[in-house]
Amino acid sequence: MVAIRYEHIKTCRQSGARLGKVHTPHGTFETPIFMPVGTLATVKTMSPEELKEIGSQIILSNTYHLWLRPGHDIVKEAGGLHKFMNWDRPILTDSGGFQVFSLSALRKIEEEGVHFRNHLSGEKLFLSPEGAMEIQNALGSDIMMAFDECPPYPATYEYMLKSVERTSRWAERCLEGHKRPEDQGLFGIVQGGEYEDLRKKSAEDLVSLDFPGYAVGGLSVGEPKDVMNRVLEFTTPHLPHDKPRYLMGVGSPDALIDGTIRGIDMFDCVLPTRIARNGTCMTSSGRLVVRNAKYAKDYRPLDEKCDCHVCKNYTRAYIRHLVKCDETFGFRLTSYHNLYFLLKLMEQVREAIRQDRLLDFKEEFFEMYGLNKPNAKNF
Amino acid sequence: MVAIRYEHIKTCRQSGARLGKVHTPHGTFETPIFMPVGTLATVKTMSPEELKEIGSQIILSNTYHLWLRPGHDIVKEAGGLHKFMNWDRPILTDSGGFQVFSLSALRKIEEEGVHFRNHLSGEKLFLSPEGAMEIQNALGSDIMMAFDECPPYPATYEYMLKSVERTSRWAERCLEGHKRPEDQGLFGIVQGGEYEDLRKKSAEDLVSLDFPGYAVGGLSVGEPKDVMNRVLEFTTPHLPHDKPRYLMGVGSPDALIDGTIRGIDMFDCVLPTRIARNGTCMTSSGRLVVRNAKYAKDYRPLDEKCDCHVCKNYTRAYIRHLVKCDETFGFRLTSYHNLYFLLKLMEQVREAIRQDRLLDFKEEFFEMYGLNKPNAKNF
Repeated sequence: MVAIRYEHIKTCRQSGARLGKVHTPHGTFETPIFMPVGTLATVKTMSPEELKEIGSQIILSNTYHLWLRPGHDIVKEAGGLHKFMNWDRPILTDSGGFQVFSLSALRKIEEEGVHFRNHLSGEKLFLSPEGAMEIQNALGSDIMMAFDECPPYPATYEYMLKSVERTSRWAERCLEGHKRPEDQGLFGIVQGGEYEDLRKKSAEDLVSLDFPGYAVGGLSVGEPKDVMNRVLEFTTPHLPHDKPRYLMGVGSPDALIDGTIRGIDMFDCVLPTRIARNGTCMTSSGRLVVRNAKYAKDYRPLDEKCDCHVCKNYTRAYIRHLVKCDETFGFRLTSYHNLYFLLKLMEQVREAIRQDRLLDFKEEFFEMYGLNKPNAKNF
Repeated sequence: MVAIRYEHIKTCRQSGARLGKVHTPHGTFETPIFMPVGTLATVKTMSPEELKEIGSQIILSNTYHLWLRPGHDIVKEAGGLHKFMNWDRPILTDSGGFQVFSLSALRKIEEEGVHFRNHLSGEKLFLSPEGAMEIQNALGSDIMMAFDECPPYPATYEYMLKSVERTSRWAERCLEGHKRPEDQGLFGIVQGGEYEDLRKKSAEDLVSLDFPGYAVGGLSVGEPKDVMNRVLEFTTPHLPHDKPRYLMGVGSPDALIDGTIRGIDMFDCVLPTRIARNGTCMTSSGRLVVRNAKYAKDYRPLDEKCDCHVCKNYTRAYIRHLVKCDETFGFRLTSYHNLYFLLKLMEQVREAIRQDRLLDFKEEFFEMYGLNKPNAKNF
């Protein structure tokens, strides 16, 4: 019995993108999919009911953050993360690896694991592949991620080779440390930076361990867009067709489409909710900074082509007023709209694959969104 | 045609409390009632749908705050406050008088009005009875409040006498300045501090002007509870039986019950939402500071006797975690619960009046809530 099963529905004849479904212990989600991020067991500002209303089929939560607050023991005692946060659909948890590398000071990487300081209290902590499994087993997510080394960008070939080899050894230890394989599926994470042969090596190492799914890690860390696309192009061919592929930390509209075209099935990013809390909205004609003065008397919806609850009931003028006053409800409205925008985009992407026209859809969307202009500003 | 009409249903034979209905251009609300406060055209953290879900029949919004942000012209252009904030039930707006006196620096009261400084920018402003009417006419609330002088507590008899006389003169100017009497009902505000003859004089002055409703102002400003009760006892008898009476700024459970017993029909207060944002909850066994460490592993609902959405789906442990992490959703949950608690309390109060047993209900509630203990801590 495996916890996670990928069902391939079709491949887009125009683009090569994949349409599928992933079956988990908490139900099925369609792919390609965008996963809203609920770092601390809440997708910031949103309720579980609202997440369902806008069509969220799976959410992500962060192992590192939940380990520190409230502690995985508390989540476990509460009956697991689903029950703790009142979310009965699938949950993916990351491994904590990325946060340990990006948020923590004074980290020291050893073969055994990583020593670092808690970004809140400064307390000394240690996280290992076994520790990351133990925490995720306690959280009870449907999809767990292996504890990998997240190298900086750019990194030398020598550094990256050692990092890939370590990530492979850690992946084996993760598989051994994972105590609930029937309830939770563990994904491996392919590293290797921008080096084609290292990506190939990393993929082959991990595929030989037979994970139920694979992530492409180490992207969206500051590299140019064409580097990301190129890396995907030479990495995904080494991943099995019958397993889901997840591109970590990507959520800008163009990257979702470009990643899908290169064979990716799953994405996550804090982008839509983070920019929402800054008063920036995703709309069908590009980004709209609703806190700007020019919207003070603009009584149109955020996006005139959007049919979400926010766009049906609230004006730019009202939302600007709330955001300017730091009113929580304003950030609820912008977060709701932005997540709806991305989830709806992925629904359109799936439909375009179904119709074998994802490249046409990309062209139309980039045109509408203003991404075909020279120096187009994305998110 | 009058905008506001009070329908008396019955008087509690045990307590003398009134059961009634108030008919407004945006529908009817039952009395006695508690009105959640939506200072800046939003009841902090809550959506209009949630407010309806918990049974809010009318909300209050603040003229002073909306005048400064976003400006009443913008609200008017948006089609009025109801449309601006997507709330189609009754709205009461205060006059701005209380905020001018409590929030502003360097205020100078003259017969014409009040000079003061904007509490945000320091800009010099002036508010008069006519100005308060103009702003509220632009907002389009169902119930407007007269612009009164809000004296400090305590104040000397001489000061209070002059203040009452000025408030009466300003009330006349408000009636003249009010340009939409068919769409909006204007309530007068009885002042007079703790002086029985001044409360009587203020009430008689205002009643002679025939407002569609009356507020008792100048209470809940730091005076002891028995002073508030005594003032109500000698003030409400001077108010007409066929008009609603509104006690401004009161929202602690005991004061709602005690005010009702003394003939009050309407209440408002920021208390339930303000304490919610500090992690304090109203429960059937008294106040619960959910951010306290002792709730870290408490998997019970906030209030085991409560049937609200929050208590049915979330634990103290989860809510504590969110509140400790400053997560918006935590404050949504505590605000929702606290408002539900007070609205449900008023529903029970109305039922007790219907059954002629409000004094018995008070006894039971005070016992349960721990208010009968010596030095009982209320909110």
